[in-house]
Amino acid sequence: MSTATKKPIVLTGDRTTGPLHLGHFVGSLQSRVKLQEEAEQYLLLADAQAMTDNVGRHVKVSENVLEVALDYLAVGIDPAKSTIFIQSQVSELCELTQFLLNLVTVSRLERNPTIKEEIRLRGFERDIPAGFLTYPVSQAADITAFRASIVPVGEDQVPMIEQTNELVRRFNATVDAEILVECSAMMSSVGRLPGIDGKAKMSKSLGNTISLSATPDEISQAVKRMYTDPTHLRVDDPGMVEGNVVFSFLDAFEPDRARVAELKAHYQRGGLGDSVVKRLLDERLQALIAPIRERRAHFAADRGEVLAILKRGTERARNTAAATLSDVKGALGLNYFG
Amino acid sequence: MSTATKKPIVLTGDRTTGPLHLGHFVGSLQSRVKLQEEAEQYLLLADAQAMTDNVGRHVKVSENVLEVALDYLAVGIDPAKSTIFIQSQVSELCELTQFLLNLVTVSRLERNPTIKEEIRLRGFERDIPAGFLTYPVSQAADITAFRASIVPVGEDQVPMIEQTNELVRRFNATVDAEILVECSAMMSSVGRLPGIDGKAKMSKSLGNTISLSATPDEISQAVKRMYTDPTHLRVDDPGMVEGNVVFSFLDAFEPDRARVAELKAHYQRGGLGDSVVKRLLDERLQALIAPIRERRAHFAADRGEVLAILKRGTERARNTAAATLSDVKGALGLNYFG
Repeated sequence: MSTATKKPIVLTGDRTTGPLHLGHFVGSLQSRVKLQEEAEQYLLLADAQAMTDNVGRHVKVSENVLEVALDYLAVGIDPAKSTIFIQSQVSELCELTQFLLNLVTVSRLERNPTIKEEIRLRGFERDIPAGFLTYPVSQAADITAFRASIVPVGEDQVPMIEQTNELVRRFNATVDAEILVECSAMMSSVGRLPGIDGKAKMSKSLGNTISLSATPDEISQAVKRMYTDPTHLRVDDPGMVEGNVVFSFLDAFEPDRARVAELKAHYQRGGLGDSVVKRLLDERLQALIAPIRERRAHFAADRGEVLAILKRGTERARNTAAATLSDVKGALGLNYFG
Repeated sequence: MSTATKKPIVLTGDRTTGPLHLGHFVGSLQSRVKLQEEAEQYLLLADAQAMTDNVGRHVKVSENVLEVALDYLAVGIDPAKSTIFIQSQVSELCELTQFLLNLVTVSRLERNPTIKEEIRLRGFERDIPAGFLTYPVSQAADITAFRASIVPVGEDQVPMIEQTNELVRRFNATVDAEILVECSAMMSSVGRLPGIDGKAKMSKSLGNTISLSATPDEISQAVKRMYTDPTHLRVDDPGMVEGNVVFSFLDAFEPDRARVAELKAHYQRGGLGDSVVKRLLDERLQALIAPIRERRAHFAADRGEVLAILKRGTERARNTAAATLSDVKGALGLNYFG
């Protein structure tokens, strides 16, 4: 076994329902740029999974595959280091899903806390699409097809990892062989970036995002609109930094921690105006986003090349998934034709 | 369009959980031998579907793929006329299943009368494997992947056809194009063959079958053990033909209808002994099964050739299913690479 193959295998990705934004950058993209140096990283453009709760919005889902891929390339995901692939083009994932579906009961899926919460959020009530209820099984297939040992997740996604490992153990016990591999959740150490309106989550549907392709003017406008401390009316007044989006952003994007601490102290005791802090943040975000925007525009100008990157990544992913599937089918006695 | 492609397309098949028996011959096999002359017939060896309620018995399922194929060939299914293929080797079916799963709710699946009854029979109660609850969707994929217009079914399977057509309409409405094709149930005109013990259903698990490879002695033994009229103690007594397995079998296998009517009348008025009728049936079954047994032994002696037949059929099936899947993915915008 070469050193290369001893690297941990990471599986992560995004539903392709829209271009990514700074929330994704903080929550996952920047760590993926680091991870690709240390791990064998598979990046899933989860169009098929996005379909499970976007019936009738399939055009949006398929069109955003390229958008999310552009975002990946723009932030510095290197297709020579990370395998970027399109879920719907890897039929092996559907096949593996089919076998895993036999190993979990409907009631177990209904008890999955992540699914329960998402069913509530989407207002499905009793009209849960079967594909939505079973998507954790499809996710388990995505993870195990690549024998991923590490899956970066938010806290709310931990039950999905438990579900995956249950399926791994159940499958291996059924065939009495160690075919599939258990994985570990890798929790993010950074907090979630709030929306510019102060809402807990930055989300395109809430209109409170800053996109990774934001123009200088869009960035400045967003920073100007940012929620701060509504009771901080005069510069001399003491201000709150908790719940103050400008400081949350500085926490996320200003590498000079001492300077942020100093600014916070000054703001809290009074004498520091919002406009000053916002100007600092604006500069910081302009510097962060400019190269991302430029790289994105560069790739967007050659969509053929991006498609070629996705094609190569998808072929690589298929080869890996096919090897796992062959082991799975072999263990079940289903490799009739050798 | 050539005349050949105007033939109706038929999709049918069997779960591969054991060799077939005379019940299958009466219920489906003999009509398939006729159908292959008039229709483009796809015969599905449903190993993947069999897995949905045979977790841990995968060896039985996979081993019986060849057994069922041998039964097909033995009764006169001609691989040049019918496409015999293995479900688990056609990944396109899993892919299509995945898309269809988004178009049906969990509660709709739970209301499917066939599924409700099968859940009851299997004693699943709340522990229904997700793969079992969703197998009607997988079945809809099997049917629609081949654009089958005719699906031979028993009465208990009619809800499956309704479910399939619901999915077809829902899919076509979602993509606003006539991509998938609705199908019709073809109900069998022949009644179900009872078990030799008089139970309503001939079933391997009840030990009341006559297999398609039964030896002359096994046939005779089975006929001897056949349930008749327990009140018909002396030859001179009037006998009952209803519920009398020997007469059910004569109804199914004796082409000379007048002779059967005559025998029934004689038996009912008294004076016809069980042994005489059983001897007639024995002769009839020996004549029926002998060539089947011989053809089966002939094919069984060259398993490589049978596998080659299955490989060719599976390739043909894959090509057809791949064309449908390409239309489906195209309609959803998922043919990124052209």
